[in-house]
Amino acid sequence: MYNIGIDLGGTNIAAAIVAENGTIIRKGSVPTKREREYPEIIKDMAMLALKLIEEENIKLDDIYSIGVGSPGTPNPQKGIIVYANNLNFNNVPIRDEIRKYIDKPVYIGNDANVAALGEFECGAGKVYKDFVAITLGTGVGSGVIIDGKIIDGSFNGASELGHMTINFDGILCKCGRKGCWEQYSSATALIRDAKNAAINNPKSKLNNLVNGDVNKMNAKIPFDAALEGDEVAVKVINEYIRCLAIGIVNVINIFQPEIIVLGGGVSAQGDNLIKPLKENIIKEVYGGEEAFKTKVEVAKLGNDAGIIGAAMLYKAYEK
Amino acid sequence: MYNIGIDLGGTNIAAAIVAENGTIIRKGSVPTKREREYPEIIKDMAMLALKLIEEENIKLDDIYSIGVGSPGTPNPQKGIIVYANNLNFNNVPIRDEIRKYIDKPVYIGNDANVAALGEFECGAGKVYKDFVAITLGTGVGSGVIIDGKIIDGSFNGASELGHMTINFDGILCKCGRKGCWEQYSSATALIRDAKNAAINNPKSKLNNLVNGDVNKMNAKIPFDAALEGDEVAVKVINEYIRCLAIGIVNVINIFQPEIIVLGGGVSAQGDNLIKPLKENIIKEVYGGEEAFKTKVEVAKLGNDAGIIGAAMLYKAYEK
Repeated sequence: MYNIGIDLGGTNIAAAIVAENGTIIRKGSVPTKREREYPEIIKDMAMLALKLIEEENIKLDDIYSIGVGSPGTPNPQKGIIVYANNLNFNNVPIRDEIRKYIDKPVYIGNDANVAALGEFECGAGKVYKDFVAITLGTGVGSGVIIDGKIIDGSFNGASELGHMTINFDGILCKCGRKGCWEQYSSATALIRDAKNAAINNPKSKLNNLVNGDVNKMNAKIPFDAALEGDEVAVKVINEYIRCLAIGIVNVINIFQPEIIVLGGGVSAQGDNLIKPLKENIIKEVYGGEEAFKTKVEVAKLGNDAGIIGAAMLYKAYEK
Repeated sequence: MYNIGIDLGGTNIAAAIVAENGTIIRKGSVPTKREREYPEIIKDMAMLALKLIEEENIKLDDIYSIGVGSPGTPNPQKGIIVYANNLNFNNVPIRDEIRKYIDKPVYIGNDANVAALGEFECGAGKVYKDFVAITLGTGVGSGVIIDGKIIDGSFNGASELGHMTINFDGILCKCGRKGCWEQYSSATALIRDAKNAAINNPKSKLNNLVNGDVNKMNAKIPFDAALEGDEVAVKVINEYIRCLAIGIVNVINIFQPEIIVLGGGVSAQGDNLIKPLKENIIKEVYGGEEAFKTKVEVAKLGNDAGIIGAAMLYKAYEK
């Protein structure tokens, strides 16, 4: 038996046929063209799934379920997305629309929670039961799984760890609060700070690495410049890691999970990130070094976490 | 059948015979005298329980279990307190010690989690399943119950919401971090700020209400002065409620529980606290007013939450 996982993004719809052990059998994507009405978008999701099935030369009977990770707040019981700002979705019946084309059980979930589920079932969280996934990307995304179950709140909107204030008079967030964690620990935040540091320090290697055009800044460059000993970059990275550690210590003090898994672009830094991060965490965690038993590791599935997690949604709902 | 609930505090040991519905049948207390060795302290806990049973003229056979809420980090499986700074406890075998005197099942839990369990089973949380209790006292204590189960972390030290940083360059906390929530929202923090405001503003009514001695400040006085229109007190209270709301919005963004219940001395203010608090929360919660579905209410059991919760511990472990 296989499951279909669909990751609905603002730019692309990615889908895959996924084996029960999480192996991707075949995957593909089409542009979301999010300015369209939802029936067209969801039709493309179903058509992509059917195309993969046909290409792989398997039967519909070999498919057990379809799972969809979507931005926004889902109502998993009803199979709808209650709202998703960036897709302009309001009470969109994803399940019913997909079932117009494919008569299979359809499960939906929030994209961050679904990606966490992917890592939990098939990636870095595989052998654990209390698990937090943090994605350091455009924002700070997150998914929390305790005792094997997704914490999605009483109203399906929980685990917005990126919108936990860590600095209450700090940088204004687009959510309206000040000092949200994602204003300090997203890739976007790192790029913003590296850009400003480059502009304010013309001699910094940061400027060489972007060939003099700060708009070419990405999340890798400040790490590279810091490794080359550029003091300005070292300062940017140290402050980035300090703030990341502050949020992670909050997460540990709140959940004390077995493992926290970091994904997203910044996590590609591996030990350059994890090692100093842990040194910062140990200094602050409640109960001190002795109480710091939570593992902090890099995610394993990369961008596939979303489609694999979507394919695994049936497990979360059949438990 | 009854259960015995024991609330082990730094100053007093409180205990009660509790009916299955949470009604206290008989209660009593003895001083902890925490400078003593643990076998003596725990012997007094058992003796107090036996004395209540005798006074109530019931039989040991009428007692189903004994529950103990203790400061510090428990290992509920082993029935020990791993460490509790303020009692100088290190791997103290509470279960085994109590069973030297009373041959009944003994359950132990962290005092904040146990008090939350009391409110959850028998107080303001009775009809809910996703529930967060926040105690505004000497510190900010907390207990989180999701889907009817205490979130105590993989290493029994979770739910330290009071040690979530909300202001990372802020006031130094005794845990070693800067800007912990309890530095802004505990009764201690409110008293500190009211004292300072009184000293800096000799004409404020705050000074009248303490009869000129700021060391008589308590958490009620700034609320009283604010109600009388004292501008200095209004400022103190507004800032206190602003910071309390910031932490609570974090809790909602993280857990989105059905209800958050506030206990501890400050919660005695009732609507004077809850009404402006909700106005502050609505402004900041993720997803805005529409997404703010979590109830925020005052706890119902007062100081009895600890002994009632302790008596209910068997439910948490037999589930």
